[in-house]
Amino acid sequence: MARVVVDVMLKPEILDPQGQAVQRALPRLGFEGIADVRQGKRFELEVEGPVDDAALSRIHEMAETFLANTVIEDFTVHVDEPAEARS
Amino acid sequence: MARVVVDVMLKPEILDPQGQAVQRALPRLGFEGIADVRQGKRFELEVEGPVDDAALSRIHEMAETFLANTVIEDFTVHVDEPAEARS
Repeated sequence: MARVVVDVMLKPEILDPQGQAVQRALPRLGFEGIADVRQGKRFELEVEGPVDDAALSRIHEMAETFLANTVIEDFTVHVDEPAEARS
Repeated sequence: MARVVVDVMLKPEILDPQGQAVQRALPRLGFEGIADVRQGKRFELEVEGPVDDAALSRIHEMAETFLANTVIEDFTVHVDEPAEARS
């Protein structure tokens, strides 16, 4: 089984209140040097069978019609190696 | 300015109701062949200055103490090339 990741982020021109809230809190927590923070969604899809072009275009369609609101969000689709031990 | 991405996902052993809701909806929308869906958060941080080891360890600490709840979530940190035109 392969893993495909769909990352969904607000379009750059769309205000991101969640990201701004995180950014404003960072200096109070002692973290300087972060000019901007954007927060979005990450979907990890475990795909049955080979991840060929047909599967990827299906997932692209799925992202476009269901996982992202393409009026205000952009998305990217990429095949992810099975996550090694995450920290 | 460089962009560092922090991906935060629920630990594998933690139930993911949002991911399950997405997974159950997919066949109704005509998308077959997706065995599992996990949903998490993606933070894009625009970092002032060079992203050297010191900056990365600071961001790692930021993720550990603020962006992720490490009791139930795992996170990864990676440097991201400026996003080319997203779809």
